[in-house]
Amino acid sequence: MRRIRYGMVGGGQGAFIGEVHRMAARLDDCYELVCGAFSGNPERSRQSGVALGLDETRCYRDFDTMFSREAALPEDERMECVVIVTPNNSHYAIAMLALENGFHILSDKPATATLDECLSLAETLADTDLLYGLTHTYTGYPMIREARERVAAGQLGTVRKIIVEYTQGWLSQREEDRDNPQAAWRTDPARAGSSCCMGDIGVHAFNLAEFVTGLSVTRLNAELNSIVPGRKLDDDGTVLMHFDNGARGTLLSSQICVGDENNLRLRVYGDQASLDWQQMEPNTLWLKTNNSPAQMIRTGTGSVGPGAAANTRVPAGHPEGYIEAFANLYRTFAEEIRAASTGAIIDKTIPGIQDALRGMAFIEAAVRSSSEGNVWVEFPEF
Amino acid sequence: MRRIRYGMVGGGQGAFIGEVHRMAARLDDCYELVCGAFSGNPERSRQSGVALGLDETRCYRDFDTMFSREAALPEDERMECVVIVTPNNSHYAIAMLALENGFHILSDKPATATLDECLSLAETLADTDLLYGLTHTYTGYPMIREARERVAAGQLGTVRKIIVEYTQGWLSQREEDRDNPQAAWRTDPARAGSSCCMGDIGVHAFNLAEFVTGLSVTRLNAELNSIVPGRKLDDDGTVLMHFDNGARGTLLSSQICVGDENNLRLRVYGDQASLDWQQMEPNTLWLKTNNSPAQMIRTGTGSVGPGAAANTRVPAGHPEGYIEAFANLYRTFAEEIRAASTGAIIDKTIPGIQDALRGMAFIEAAVRSSSEGNVWVEFPEF
Amino acid sequence: MRRIRYGMVGGGQGAFIGEVHRMAARLDDCYELVCGAFSGNPERSRQSGVALGLDETRCYRDFDTMFSREAALPEDERMECVVIVTPNNSHYAIAMLALENGFHILSDKPATATLDECLSLAETLADTDLLYGLTHTYTGYPMIREARERVAAGQLGTVRKIIVEYTQGWLSQREEDRDNPQAAWRTDPARAGSSCCMGDIGVHAFNLAEFVTGLSVTRLNAELNSIVPGRKLDDDGTVLMHFDNGARGTLLSSQICVGDENNLRLRVYGDQASLDWQQMEPNTLWLKTNNSPAQMIRTGTGSVGPGAAANTRVPAGHPEGYIEAFANLYRTFAEEIRAASTGAIIDKTIPGIQDALRGMAFIEAAVRSSSEGNVWVEFPEF
Amino acid sequence: MRRIRYGMVGGGQGAFIGEVHRMAARLDDCYELVCGAFSGNPERSRQSGVALGLDETRCYRDFDTMFSREAALPEDERMECVVIVTPNNSHYAIAMLALENGFHILSDKPATATLDECLSLAETLADTDLLYGLTHTYTGYPMIREARERVAAGQLGTVRKIIVEYTQGWLSQREEDRDNPQAAWRTDPARAGSSCCMGDIGVHAFNLAEFVTGLSVTRLNAELNSIVPGRKLDDDGTVLMHFDNGARGTLLSSQICVGDENNLRLRVYGDQASLDWQQMEPNTLWLKTNNSPAQMIRTGTGSVGPGAAANTRVPAGHPEGYIEAFANLYRTFAEEIRAASTGAIIDKTIPGIQDALRGMAFIEAAVRSSSEGNVWVEFPEF
Repeated sequence: MRRIRYGMVGGGQGAFIGEVHRMAARLDDCYELVCGAFSGNPERSRQSGVALGLDETRCYRDFDTMFSREAALPEDERMECVVIVTPNNSHYAIAMLALENGFHILSDKPATATLDECLSLAETLADTDLLYGLTHTYTGYPMIREARERVAAGQLGTVRKIIVEYTQGWLSQREEDRDNPQAAWRTDPARAGSSCCMGDIGVHAFNLAEFVTGLSVTRLNAELNSIVPGRKLDDDGTVLMHFDNGARGTLLSSQICVGDENNLRLRVYGDQASLDWQQMEPNTLWLKTNNSPAQMIRTGTGSVGPGAAANTRVPAGHPEGYIEAFANLYRTFAEEIRAASTGAIIDKTIPGIQDALRGMAFIEAAVRSSSEGNVWVEFPEF
Repeated sequence: MRRIRYGMVGGGQGAFIGEVHRMAARLDDCYELVCGAFSGNPERSRQSGVALGLDETRCYRDFDTMFSREAALPEDERMECVVIVTPNNSHYAIAMLALENGFHILSDKPATATLDECLSLAETLADTDLLYGLTHTYTGYPMIREARERVAAGQLGTVRKIIVEYTQGWLSQREEDRDNPQAAWRTDPARAGSSCCMGDIGVHAFNLAEFVTGLSVTRLNAELNSIVPGRKLDDDGTVLMHFDNGARGTLLSSQICVGDENNLRLRVYGDQASLDWQQMEPNTLWLKTNNSPAQMIRTGTGSVGPGAAANTRVPAGHPEGYIEAFANLYRTFAEEIRAASTGAIIDKTIPGIQDALRGMAFIEAAVRSSSEGNVWVEFPEF
Repeated sequence: MRRIRYGMVGGGQGAFIGEVHRMAARLDDCYELVCGAFSGNPERSRQSGVALGLDETRCYRDFDTMFSREAALPEDERMECVVIVTPNNSHYAIAMLALENGFHILSDKPATATLDECLSLAETLADTDLLYGLTHTYTGYPMIREARERVAAGQLGTVRKIIVEYTQGWLSQREEDRDNPQAAWRTDPARAGSSCCMGDIGVHAFNLAEFVTGLSVTRLNAELNSIVPGRKLDDDGTVLMHFDNGARGTLLSSQICVGDENNLRLRVYGDQASLDWQQMEPNTLWLKTNNSPAQMIRTGTGSVGPGAAANTRVPAGHPEGYIEAFANLYRTFAEEIRAASTGAIIDKTIPGIQDALRGMAFIEAAVRSSSEGNVWVEFPEF
Repeated sequence: MRRIRYGMVGGGQGAFIGEVHRMAARLDDCYELVCGAFSGNPERSRQSGVALGLDETRCYRDFDTMFSREAALPEDERMECVVIVTPNNSHYAIAMLALENGFHILSDKPATATLDECLSLAETLADTDLLYGLTHTYTGYPMIREARERVAAGQLGTVRKIIVEYTQGWLSQREEDRDNPQAAWRTDPARAGSSCCMGDIGVHAFNLAEFVTGLSVTRLNAELNSIVPGRKLDDDGTVLMHFDNGARGTLLSSQICVGDENNLRLRVYGDQASLDWQQMEPNTLWLKTNNSPAQMIRTGTGSVGPGAAANTRVPAGHPEGYIEAFANLYRTFAEEIRAASTGAIIDKTIPGIQDALRGMAFIEAAVRSSSEGNVWVEFPEF
């Protein structure tokens, strides 16, 4: 199959997430990196690109240059898709310019710095034939696909309660003062937007809850905390959520949970059965009822449905991880692009602009609810 | 050592918790059951007592009779302590009469049906030399003692965040309509008081958080839900808590979490380290930091302090469980009674009237916060 | 129900296992301790007995005295059953004299110091109406009963492979030189018999494999090691076993596995399904097949059969442990004694003289196979 | 860095392991697939290559043709390294011809069908400057590197006992009769060699034990079983091993363990501490002692040494899996090739010809020990 030509904005040497994206792009051989504006520093951008084997002429000084030069290349040479892996505050400008120049977008979350930006982006996107994908990585895990299919198939009965938590410990001290660039921008309102914890990881938890259950939050009530003294944004919080079918949800998210690595866990309780999944052991999904033994559903076994099967590469018992989950999103987005170019219609199975809007709405509603004293905030409809 | 003579109110044939109390009392041979008013039905009370090997004359028709008759016996024959294992609504009357007749009290939680009752009980108790213990069973686990000592010793630094959850699935259907007496009284406001879920298990979670950290909740904000249609009391809820040192807490409790057995888990995060404990694997306590491997502290090993060691009966690797935790409370209460009779002073290490008051305050504050729409409710000081 | 009057040989102050037996005897109120010869030291025996609340006249200087004096008491006063908790080398003499005096026996394993002794004991026992129970404690766990019933019901198909392991770390150093009396006698051929590791814990693993599967070992091939320099008996070993239905087995046992607590695990593989159980999390039993999710069967739930249910005291999610397993053997033995006195016939569900013989045969065969250079040794038939 | 040009023998459409190799080669962008003889069927070879994006002229009908044609290409075009992923019986001929034509070799295990073949291969290799790597995948896991470094650093003291197990359930039925090509060749002596279970997975366990401990087996004693009726080769077995420092080892391997996925576990016990690792949760390594809490060492944290760190791609808490472990071997082999071409010397950290020889010796010794009735077989020195 034809490989999709992509360019990258951000992700130069020293950045973490850029290389993860590139590994994900390589794993299934669906993509070819053809250009990049890897850094705000033109020389670092050039060096990064060359180290990645790019032709120097396609290592650009900035994304404006990249988009205009690439757009001028012959159709079968120029990039088709841009991957955005910069801090949150620049996503909007990059994405808008990409659309203007006719490039598909695969973007890190959150989609933009504000909901207004995201609404504007969605409106612009709607006037194009271009595709937009949002790398809510955790949706790429096979067992998350399995969970989603089982909920949709009614195996849980009516969903009544959702508990989702995402806790980390890496911001339990003032890392932003310790030459940690990740910590510096994420705790900086100018670059991260109105939230650190909810914008960085809470939104993943929110997205996962909606992705798996197919339900939508209609209102929420949040307490966000800045636990570490002097921190400008939230590093901890709890969000109560009401879903459109009446289900209740509790979302816990924190970055000051000392000793926690990347503890993302989703529990969905229906009136008949429940599911339990943890990101740190992603190949196991628990299905539980009151009256029979809990079942341990495993990646790669004959017990899983088409969604999990299609997103698994090796036989049961050979663990697949985070990079594979990421690669599942990449592979699916490549299929979408190929299908788009032929007019074929395929089911979208990676998060897109709708998830982008809802994620931004979540962040802003949580911030508002908290700042106004744990009031209930209605969720906009999209 | 002298065995304490005790009588029981409630806990007749068919009741569950009464026999657990008796096993706990027997395990270490610190008690002797000498009498009981085991049921509201005099004949069942008699049968229950006889089956337990009691003399028929000390199987009483009701607790009034029991207290007056026992009080009339010679001092070295009559019961010293009453164990109360009836539904919540009767605790107060029994306890007050016990005090009046000079008996120590070991009571199931919650202490009373209302905070007012509990305040009255506390006041009366203060005028006596009698002892009051509340069987918050989970505080009896060795690893809970270990956790408490480690927090007190400063191993976590300053406690900043507490996550405590207690979820069960047994009330996910309308068990109250299915000839399940436990479900019937717990969901009945007349017998259970103002709360089902928070009064039955949420209060355990609350107590455990305070017991382990030594901190006190100062205000809370709760959403309680009656998930199962037609249920008259809450069967689910989330409570946000502020502690007196500024720490934040989230308490999750539910009885509709299909497939969950008795999932009580406590996580305490300090600025230096954190602890994680789960009731269903009670002999393991995790100590975690950001910069070194998590440590798995185990019951019965040389790594534990005096509190855990004193509450452990067998070598490491031989699991101790719920009955042993219960027996730890019983044994300690027996020590307190013996010490009281000699005038000796010992550290109280089982929950008492203070915990009773705080637990009732928790339940009432949670109910009020929720019914008034997620408002913050200040916690009374005791 | 009538409580069984028992006496104890061994188990005085400072001994570990004696108190475990007494807790097990007390838990369900089926027994009454009436006498004891708790120590080879008469004064310590007396002190131990008095501390346990015994009348001084029934704290005996040695077991000979105890048996003769008790036998002379009126039938409704004298002990009915002796519990033997001394080092291995004395079991035989005590048991034989107990039979001679008409007392039932509940004995610590291994039954005797040699197979010959055990054969002689079995022969003598057969000429009486007395009962003999052997405290292979692990057979008392509810999930072991469940496993046994599921194998018997054919849920595994034909059993083909058994892997059983029992590893500990407590003898990884020369504890016998460090004033550790347990280590001293277990590593001393004069008191422990021909084996330390196999006699102490390997025989538990062997017994559990036979108990759960209902199969019998027909031959074995063993390598026993004395890993710690200077140790006189084995502290480690592997045993290959052939079962009477053709199944193969591997038994691993070691006491030098640093950091292991009491790691007893049994895996049974049939041609249709398999079971996996671990003593350190005893309330979980795994049932696995190739084509469907593994099932986690749990103590106290509705998924278990009569054997587990009858040996469980509290609802699911309240862990039961080692003492409860022990108490299950005690309670069942009490039922056997009561049934015997009335002529009733009940299913024996605790290990008895047959297990005693097979256990001794196992130990001796393993020692012989190893000392002769990993030769296959046929297992005697009993 | 320059990408290594490689060709593949085997691994055409429908084969499993070929694509795993290719994913491993792609992940870090160290390789370029330039040619292949993907199948014994020339047309399928062509189709497979074209589907992989190869030029049709470099999709060869067989490996002879591939080697001769590639050798004739200009040095900067022709392949440098051949990856062998065919059934065992063809490894030798392919490898020998590769050496003759000057290609580095990266081969699936076991290296050859017999030890004699492997000795011949080793001899030939020694006369070249070519590199030979053997994909004992599990050595590529970060925590295996960590384990190895900790043993080498003496953290365990003297290694005394090794327990390694590798059990699967996929051959518990006669899959070889069910159109399962993997099962067909692995159970066929003509293609698999003298062993199925030991040759397929037992040898991985053996290799891992030696890799981690740095010790060498000197003699072994094995019982291999053909549990499934009619099977021509072993599908189960236990191997006792003596190591060169006197340590004892037990290796369990089986393919009839119904319900087991890919249960590879290594436990190493020293006189001071022990390690425990399981492939199905590969990012956790346990370090245990008798006198302090067990430590859970985790991939990606600050607690690991250089070997683990160099073989990790994402931060702690984002699981890495089997493909990443495989890719670690590929990346290291690429480094070795680059270093070889420049004359640089680097530490070999992937298994090579020495491991190939020892693995073949292990398989043959195990088969011989078993067929001669559990005799001890001395291990050849290499």
